[in-house]
Amino acid sequence: MQSKPTLVHSASSPIDRLLALAAEDMKQVDAIIVERMQSPVGMIPDLATHLVGAGGKRLRPLLTIASAHLCDYKGESHHKLAAAVEFIHSATLLHDDVVDESALRRGRKTANRVWGNSATILVGDFLFARAFNLMVETQSIEALGILSNASSVIAEGEVHQLAALRNVDMTESVYMDVIGAKTAALFSAAAEVSPVIAGCPLAYRQALRRYGQELGLAFQLVDDALDYGGIESALGKSVGDDFREGKMTLPVIRAYASGDEDDKQFWRRVISEHDQSEMDLETAVSKLRTAGALKSTLDEARRRVENAKKALAIFPDNEWKTALKDIAGFVVARVS
Amino acid sequence: MQSKPTLVHSASSPIDRLLALAAEDMKQVDAIIVERMQSPVGMIPDLATHLVGAGGKRLRPLLTIASAHLCDYKGESHHKLAAAVEFIHSATLLHDDVVDESALRRGRKTANRVWGNSATILVGDFLFARAFNLMVETQSIEALGILSNASSVIAEGEVHQLAALRNVDMTESVYMDVIGAKTAALFSAAAEVSPVIAGCPLAYRQALRRYGQELGLAFQLVDDALDYGGIESALGKSVGDDFREGKMTLPVIRAYASGDEDDKQFWRRVISEHDQSEMDLETAVSKLRTAGALKSTLDEARRRVENAKKALAIFPDNEWKTALKDIAGFVVARVS
Repeated sequence: MQSKPTLVHSASSPIDRLLALAAEDMKQVDAIIVERMQSPVGMIPDLATHLVGAGGKRLRPLLTIASAHLCDYKGESHHKLAAAVEFIHSATLLHDDVVDESALRRGRKTANRVWGNSATILVGDFLFARAFNLMVETQSIEALGILSNASSVIAEGEVHQLAALRNVDMTESVYMDVIGAKTAALFSAAAEVSPVIAGCPLAYRQALRRYGQELGLAFQLVDDALDYGGIESALGKSVGDDFREGKMTLPVIRAYASGDEDDKQFWRRVISEHDQSEMDLETAVSKLRTAGALKSTLDEARRRVENAKKALAIFPDNEWKTALKDIAGFVVARVS
Repeated sequence: MQSKPTLVHSASSPIDRLLALAAEDMKQVDAIIVERMQSPVGMIPDLATHLVGAGGKRLRPLLTIASAHLCDYKGESHHKLAAAVEFIHSATLLHDDVVDESALRRGRKTANRVWGNSATILVGDFLFARAFNLMVETQSIEALGILSNASSVIAEGEVHQLAALRNVDMTESVYMDVIGAKTAALFSAAAEVSPVIAGCPLAYRQALRRYGQELGLAFQLVDDALDYGGIESALGKSVGDDFREGKMTLPVIRAYASGDEDDKQFWRRVISEHDQSEMDLETAVSKLRTAGALKSTLDEARRRVENAKKALAIFPDNEWKTALKDIAGFVVARVS
């Protein structure tokens, strides 16, 4: 699974402040999203609405909108690009759920469980193509280049992750490559397209790309820690997906590396041999906590968040910069 | 299944003449295809080579190349666009094979049978994204518009087909919509991008779009007739896929419409109720032949081929025009 949107936030959370700040823009982005999911083939809007209409944070399109304001962009292309970013994200979620055989997303049954794998694959393709239709309408070859490049990098990351499944010897470096591609590339592209359409100098473009990349890494690191319940929380129902799939994530990589022979044998059995019994998830969480692997994963996420914030230093202080920094902080704050 | 590449051709066939004429171009297109399937993630080139390297006719990229010459195009973007067209086609084949649970393609095991559904879906996504990378490199927003539009139309057609599966009441009009979208849209786009990058007048662009659309319809009509063995041939091993999937194609639509109550009951049982026993395919073929439904489907294909040829009337006579007309004829000739 690519990401579990579990941002539970209070009324005064940074994401709500950003949502209020971007409310007018996001209304237009949502209108484009709804309009472009339509088709005379009823199964398409039905299935797409099931996912896209189920809420979700719209975190990625928000990055595009906030970055556009940060770059003082005066046109309207950022709405279409933000919608395109959300369509690319939605397409990858649909395909991910087929690949991972997921049953739940955003608190409801996955599209593949309701409409079957075939429809889910094809509607994913449709949304992906519609993303490109929207980008073409902006007439920005540069934005198309950034988002089409991100799209192939995402697919590459997803295949890489699949090829590395159940490989207990996966290194941290490979893990960072995988999450950099499957998750951070879209955050990065979502932030980078705005300075491009705004005609900002290269340094601003590089700064927002860096911001998005680091934020995306932090987001996935937090997600991977949350899949084992985070540091303290009790095991919730959405916990253990990565474990059951035999996905190597940073907590497991670190616990395996620092473990004794008994630990290593445990991880080899449950991950590589995929021989899991009922109590193994609890044992896994206990081993991760003992090894400090969840804490160190979240520390890594916090470092990435600091990097993301630092990348914005080049921009003058204003409410959009504050909002983007708050968002970055919130990505990690959601676990504590 | 979208199309079964069963063009068995002799040394002097029109497709060979076109291949000889376009040999230099196709060498460059193939080089781009091979280069852009590469990735450090080994599973990607492995799986992509299995499909793309297995031959196939390269009929769609050939249309792009021949159309470019017909429009006297002097640049090099047609090579990248032709490769992009083949990548879009390959991506749809990979996803189709997962959707249809196909076991064989181009005489070998399908990618989904060798690497599994997950890898096949994700490598399809990768090739699709790479197609857009190539288009972006041509810097032609118009070509991007044509091919991204075709991509969403294809996905729409595939979902439409899926939604209409086992619906014995499907009309000819819906059938034509479906094959117009799932098959002809890419033929049409493949031919249309060339006059666009060549800067040809709109009339030439419309002519080649029309040519591609009619040729694509003819191609799919022939394919759907061949799935029941054509008019005379014995039942080969690749016959009956549509029947087993409960796909309504023109032969069945016509045989059902003209059938008596016994016939209708048969089609309802095997298609709508999907209750098929061993001898039913033979019975189906016999009913289709008795009703003249295979012949009339091929007659329809021949009409489409004539339309395609007529659409080229606007162009001056030259070897490329002859080649494109020959190709059109050959699409139908392969069944007799």
